Amino acid sequence: MKLCRFDDDRIGLVRGRNVHDVSDILAALPPLRYPLPFGDQLIAHLERLRHRMERLADMAPPQPVDGVRLLSPVANPSKIIGTPVNYRAHVEEARRDPQISVFHGDKPRSIEEQGLFLKASSSLVGPSEGVAIRFADRRTDHEAELGVVIGRKTGPVAEADALNVVAGYAIALDMSVRGKEDRSFRKSPDTYAVLGPWLVTADEIGDPGALDFTLHVNGELRQAANTREMIIGIARQIFWASSVYTLYPGDIIMSGTCQGVAPVKPGDVMTVSFERIGEMTVAVR
Amino acid sequence: MKLCRFDDDRIGLVRGRNVHDVSDILAALPPLRYPLPFGDQLIAHLERLRHRMERLADMAPPQPVDGVRLLSPVANPSKIIGTPVNYRAHVEEARRDPQISVFHGDKPRSIEEQGLFLKASSSLVGPSEGVAIRFADRRTDHEAELGVVIGRKTGPVAEADALNVVAGYAIALDMSVRGKEDRSFRKSPDTYAVLGPWLVTADEIGDPGALDFTLHVNGELRQAANTREMIIGIARQIFWASSVYTLYPGDIIMSGTCQGVAPVKPGDVMTVSFERIGEMTVAVR
Repeated sequence: MKLCRFDDDRIGLVRGRNVHDVSDILAALPPLRYPLPFGDQLIAHLERLRHRMERLADMAPPQPVDGVRLLSPVANPSKIIGTPVNYRAHVEEARRDPQISVFHGDKPRSIEEQGLFLKASSSLVGPSEGVAIRFADRRTDHEAELGVVIGRKTGPVAEADALNVVAGYAIALDMSVRGKEDRSFRKSPDTYAVLGPWLVTADEIGDPGALDFTLHVNGELRQAANTREMIIGIARQIFWASSVYTLYPGDIIMSGTCQGVAPVKPGDVMTVSFERIGEMTVAVR
Repeated sequence: MKLCRFDDDRIGLVRGRNVHDVSDILAALPPLRYPLPFGDQLIAHLERLRHRMERLADMAPPQPVDGVRLLSPVANPSKIIGTPVNYRAHVEEARRDPQISVFHGDKPRSIEEQGLFLKASSSLVGPSEGVAIRFADRRTDHEAELGVVIGRKTGPVAEADALNVVAGYAIALDMSVRGKEDRSFRKSPDTYAVLGPWLVTADEIGDPGALDFTLHVNGELRQAANTREMIIGIARQIFWASSVYTLYPGDIIMSGTCQGVAPVKPGDVMTVSFERIGEMTVAVR
């Protein structure tokens, strides 16, 4: 199932090149009152509501997905987690580029030494909202990544069981200001976390460690890799994250980018494609 | 006004040594549906509801505040922001202690070079919930700080206007695992952000840059300073944060700790006192 959020907070299922409006499903979510439960309530109830959503989609007229404004398929993440420098060829390019802070002094650091990082939940947008460059005088890079969306509240989980807590996958852009500050600062301006074009449920992805992906800027190829080139795979990232903090439905893990990161400027258009997910186009302003 | 959340998500006003239950105010919050607005809904409506809460408190029987379980006065922060090494004497002790990563290689870095950092929203607890040491084999330090709670949605704000967006202040503990990882990793385990014992509205604090505070562990004094010793004051922190990302009601800024940070272990009891706020006691397990 491909789940999207579009236009004025409508919920849709994507079938082929069409979207079917299933927003009536929102009436099936439990009523909410203060204090709110952590996490995204649609994602939290996705498994239970899935078949009703498919039936609603069967009855809804198709409309071309190219004609709708795509928002982030996760509306309310309690946190956005990032895995740093998780592709070998990106480690190599970071070694050559002093503006990419992978090192502590002169010593290269392993991913474990660097730790997972956080991006502000307020940085999250969908592809149609675009990326607004926050600091015009600083370098902002594109980082195409596989986005992992957690499906249920999860305490410490074994690596062997970790993929079972995944609701689905989406394309992620971990936009990054270069510099020396903590990653949680440089990667958190508004619009610097893009998730889209929709959430593909885990059953349609199979092995998340075998997906080709590319990023083009203005039609020119910049990044290309396969998720099997990750240094730390998705299951191990979830195991690691869950050893630090409780994961909640809708929490997003941005699993690291591959080689080819480079600056973007207002007017650029990024296009990211992922095997078995689709393609999303994101304008920079 | 001193606002607390207690026991089973009750809302109370603290007057002297008593709490007055004003939970009926929650019925005045607007109904919520997916997708949820960012931020804490009680804090978002605090100004509007304040006088009704005072009247409810007038009618509610007092109960001793020592007899209730105090939760975090903010239930749903969209983000928790931290300001690193913001007291000169703490910079000096960090210089002497290689386990406190203030430096990049051998070069000391300014606060601006280090950047603000994030703590996971899922790490937030109130004093009665206590701190659970996450990694038994690593050093976890107490860091007593002034917690600043944002009262309204805020884009870039001038330093001169910044204190106007504050709902109130509370005592904060920015519990920190020592090590080389990004701060957003080391400071984010569950229970590593303590906020309490209540929120004191900004009008009762006056100048947040003139508050004495102390932290004791098992009755022994460990940290003592005045918030005027901050390198970057509260208004400038809000100005800085708002230049990076939109602030939402209930967003928390932990404004940096003073000298005296040291490890805690299960069984320890931390007591933090802040002038014009009060005192909170937090057990470590």
